Amino acid sequence: MKVIADVCIVPIGVGVSVSKEVAVCERILRETGLKTQLHAYGTNIEGEWDEVFAAVKKCHETLHALGVERVSSSIRVGSRTDKPQTIEDKIRKVQERL
Amino acid sequence: MKVIADVCIVPIGVGVSVSKEVAVCERILRETGLKTQLHAYGTNIEGEWDEVFAAVKKCHETLHALGVERVSSSIRVGSRTDKPQTIEDKIRKVQERL
Amino acid sequence: MKVIADVCIVPIGVGVSVSKEVAVCERILRETGLKTQLHAYGTNIEGEWDEVFAAVKKCHETLHALGVERVSSSIRVGSRTDKPQTIEDKIRKVQERL
Amino acid sequence: MKVIADVCIVPIGVGVSVSKEVAVCERILRETGLKTQLHAYGTNIEGEWDEVFAAVKKCHETLHALGVERVSSSIRVGSRTDKPQTIEDKIRKVQERL
Repeated sequence: MKVIADVCIVPIGVGVSVSKEVAVCERILRETGLKTQLHAYGTNIEGEWDEVFAAVKKCHETLHALGVERVSSSIRVGSRTDKPQTIEDKIRKVQERL
Repeated sequence: MKVIADVCIVPIGVGVSVSKEVAVCERILRETGLKTQLHAYGTNIEGEWDEVFAAVKKCHETLHALGVERVSSSIRVGSRTDKPQTIEDKIRKVQERL
Repeated sequence: MKVIADVCIVPIGVGVSVSKEVAVCERILRETGLKTQLHAYGTNIEGEWDEVFAAVKKCHETLHALGVERVSSSIRVGSRTDKPQTIEDKIRKVQERL
Repeated sequence: MKVIADVCIVPIGVGVSVSKEVAVCERILRETGLKTQLHAYGTNIEGEWDEVFAAVKKCHETLHALGVERVSSSIRVGSRTDKPQTIEDKIRKVQERL
């Protein structure tokens, strides 16, 4: 099952600045080979359900291995059977109507 | 990796009332044997990462098999390494301070 | 416009345990007189749009006033025009189908 | 209080394709003059708390006025007191570490 997800991973207990931990996760997501797109409050990810959630799990596990004691993520995930759709499709469909 | 998650599954394209589809998902989540707690805007789920996300995946797949063409879920998921924590622990910790 | 919302407020930079800050917010939400229901990953809130978001804003402001330098919240909010609906309605509608 | 938010507005009961309704909301958000950035699963918005949530409220109200009977939004919102931060700052801080 193909999905488009949006993931915001928040490390808790490492202080106010979390860009180092977010960058660790961003690298993990990119190394999966899944299509990703970083934005200011998360990352779009496109791929098979299992691969997408394995990638997010690896982010949690890696942060914990680096000493982050608590991680809280907010995820949106969408699947559809009527037609295939990519990250670019979704953005273009809206922009064409603006 | 043990997690506490909160999942809100929204079927799209089936009309305004979605309680039938939400109940299908609620049954799937309960049949997993994972600890769950329904609330007005989602369901708390406690268990191993892989089992929790396999359950949510099964909800998407089942709704699609029933003819729902599009499903969009909003998920919060938290993991921590400092101590084990249950759904009841989280609620009690806050209530003790009220 | 009446809404049912679900709010999860995460204080960042105060350490791994956040139950003190979550309890501060829970008290603020309850003192508004809005109907609320705490669960393990957030709080359901029922009321007028402006009152609900004024309450969540007050949580952010109060945490900042208490020295929390960063707050990140995850919110679901739903409105509908076909019929009035309460927190209890939403839960009962699903439970009746289980 | 300045915030960076991320908003995903889902119209329910209008069918599988929701790009028309999403475009209506995107126009509303842009007409506010707030800084916005569309992505594949929502829109980043930067501005004062009251203006940001007035804009999201206007999206719900406008969709209802157009006949959409149910709208469910997923919102992330962050505020911080340690330093000012823009949408571009957040992205650059992560990209510099990749």
